Amino acid sequence: MEFKVNSKELEKHLNRVIPAIPSRTPMPILENFLFDIKDGLLTIYATDLEISLKSSFGIAADGDIDALIPAKLLHNVVRALGDTSINFEFTENGKLILKTDNGVYTLSFLGTADYPEIPDFPGDKLGSEELQELIINGEDLKSALDKSVFAIAKEEMRPALTGVLFEFSDEGLRFVATDGHRLANIIYKKYKLGEEEKKRYIVPERAVSVVIKALDEKDVKIYLSATHISFVMNDMELITRLIAQKYPDYSAVIPLENEFTMKIDANVILDVVKRMMFFSISGTKKIKFSISESKLEISAEDIDRGASADETLECEYNGEPLDIGFNSMYINDILSHLTSEKELIFNLHSPTKAVVITPVEQKEDVELMMLIMPVRLNN
Amino acid sequence: MEFKVNSKELEKHLNRVIPAIPSRTPMPILENFLFDIKDGLLTIYATDLEISLKSSFGIAADGDIDALIPAKLLHNVVRALGDTSINFEFTENGKLILKTDNGVYTLSFLGTADYPEIPDFPGDKLGSEELQELIINGEDLKSALDKSVFAIAKEEMRPALTGVLFEFSDEGLRFVATDGHRLANIIYKKYKLGEEEKKRYIVPERAVSVVIKALDEKDVKIYLSATHISFVMNDMELITRLIAQKYPDYSAVIPLENEFTMKIDANVILDVVKRMMFFSISGTKKIKFSISESKLEISAEDIDRGASADETLECEYNGEPLDIGFNSMYINDILSHLTSEKELIFNLHSPTKAVVITPVEQKEDVELMMLIMPVRLNN
Repeated sequence: MEFKVNSKELEKHLNRVIPAIPSRTPMPILENFLFDIKDGLLTIYATDLEISLKSSFGIAADGDIDALIPAKLLHNVVRALGDTSINFEFTENGKLILKTDNGVYTLSFLGTADYPEIPDFPGDKLGSEELQELIINGEDLKSALDKSVFAIAKEEMRPALTGVLFEFSDEGLRFVATDGHRLANIIYKKYKLGEEEKKRYIVPERAVSVVIKALDEKDVKIYLSATHISFVMNDMELITRLIAQKYPDYSAVIPLENEFTMKIDANVILDVVKRMMFFSISGTKKIKFSISESKLEISAEDIDRGASADETLECEYNGEPLDIGFNSMYINDILSHLTSEKELIFNLHSPTKAVVITPVEQKEDVELMMLIMPVRLNN
Repeated sequence: MEFKVNSKELEKHLNRVIPAIPSRTPMPILENFLFDIKDGLLTIYATDLEISLKSSFGIAADGDIDALIPAKLLHNVVRALGDTSINFEFTENGKLILKTDNGVYTLSFLGTADYPEIPDFPGDKLGSEELQELIINGEDLKSALDKSVFAIAKEEMRPALTGVLFEFSDEGLRFVATDGHRLANIIYKKYKLGEEEKKRYIVPERAVSVVIKALDEKDVKIYLSATHISFVMNDMELITRLIAQKYPDYSAVIPLENEFTMKIDANVILDVVKRMMFFSISGTKKIKFSISESKLEISAEDIDRGASADETLECEYNGEPLDIGFNSMYINDILSHLTSEKELIFNLHSPTKAVVITPVEQKEDVELMMLIMPVRLNN
């Protein structure tokens, strides 16, 4: 069985699918690409049992085959070949022979009998009531995931928090991520499922990270069931199991009556926080905001090394003078994801109450909000 | 005591000196910069006891001081400040206060009493007969060191081989590095000490690596004694102890009568070797060259994974058909340092004798030669 393919075209598809190849696994069979060739269509699969990726394109083949091919070796060879035509030949004795103008590369391939079953999603669910479908602009989705995924919980103590919540309601599509210390919340008002009922899905961190890298400006089709989500991007598809947990009621932590507002330049405050991080390195990594009418003073102290830092910025503030502490890493994380904004509003109430950060100018049809819990100042 | 400095100017000098700050050391005092301010000249020193770096520039100061300042913290703060004026103030109680328009950063500084003595080289040797002086073009030195340092021995079994040999003779200045498996040899004919006697100096790998990064097109002044070498580059200086060992007689391994020559494109053969490396991963990482009149066939086999590769290139060859094996990493290292050449000559004799590789066109006043030992083919 033989087929021909251009090396650059093949490389593009291997690049898309290889993120699902596990780097260490007790199941070495997962270190292979599954090549499924049928009626001139080559579909390349990879899975680490958590996420599955597949990418398809038409080839000139003289037959059909299913085969497992060592992923890393094939990827390395194809990437190193430059722009050339490659002839693939699968022999009866389990050899895969790649031929170019000057070279012959022989790999071993395996049959697919022992490979785990590839989830056929939404395949068997198509047309069922349980299945939800939605089309999202690629840049909207990329922006929403990028601005939320940093806030998810890193430890597995609360599995629900290790993913990004996709929540559909009559407000639109809301993305939420939180680890209890900070929270990211973005609503895209134009994406709705057309149902009154609120629907919630928790997408695991790894799937989100892979999707972010694959997205471009093109539309994405999303299929959702109670157990799975699939992202269909052009000729590539990612399927993952959802986190089967109840997401906590994040809205309970969002303060509604933070009456003090501070307006400040988004990039200036980030630069200051980055400098303060060199001094807030021990314990709770605390930095202190001292806010008065037109001035924000940010300070940090490294007692162990006898070092401290103090900077004063201009701001607009309408409240009572307030001292409040933050973990510098958490505030840096939030501000680093708001650099495309010009000015920010901090909504505050007291040194112990959550602070809400929003851009002064929201993008059309979008509501972006970040929240951070303060840390105690020991005065 | 106070002085003013521009952050970008200071950053440039800190960047130069920080490579000598050890990342882990049983002597925490070495994690400081030594600031020596005298008569309006700031000299910044750092040392890991093996290499010492210093960089000097004029500042507006109201007095003199010697002080130790935490290197990483100062470097981080200065780099994060953007382009601004910084006022340094050393207080009586050991605080160093940095002030900018908006910020105040307080660090602790120490006196220099417990700091190791800074080598005063060539200071006390100036004018002595033992001291040699030489000026080398920065790009010549960078090229020579870059093309040799990769070949030095990584293990410390033979200390002499863990540095680059600088050998002065009436041929010129020769740079040699070898680990017994491959050897790099470059002569710059125009650099001579003006003495008949052969002089040899072994410069440690770490010093060579730091010098390579610091070099640009400007001239470098080199001072040499029996024990030390110093590289003076503009307002920066590196001093290192030489390796006090006898360098082995490298010329004994250079074959003089390799009568067969193979001419080949330098970049084409490198690309092929890079692909072969994916297949020559076990044991001696062997790849095989099969050379005949106008063809070079390069092949590799990964028996464990049932994979192999074979490519054929055009070449010009005047010898008997020859099969010869190489360690693919070593041949890749050599060819990767010859990518600025167009065509290469391989001088060969037999499957067991060292192979000499030279560019077809040598640069003016330069003789560049690489040597590689073959590995046994088990036919």
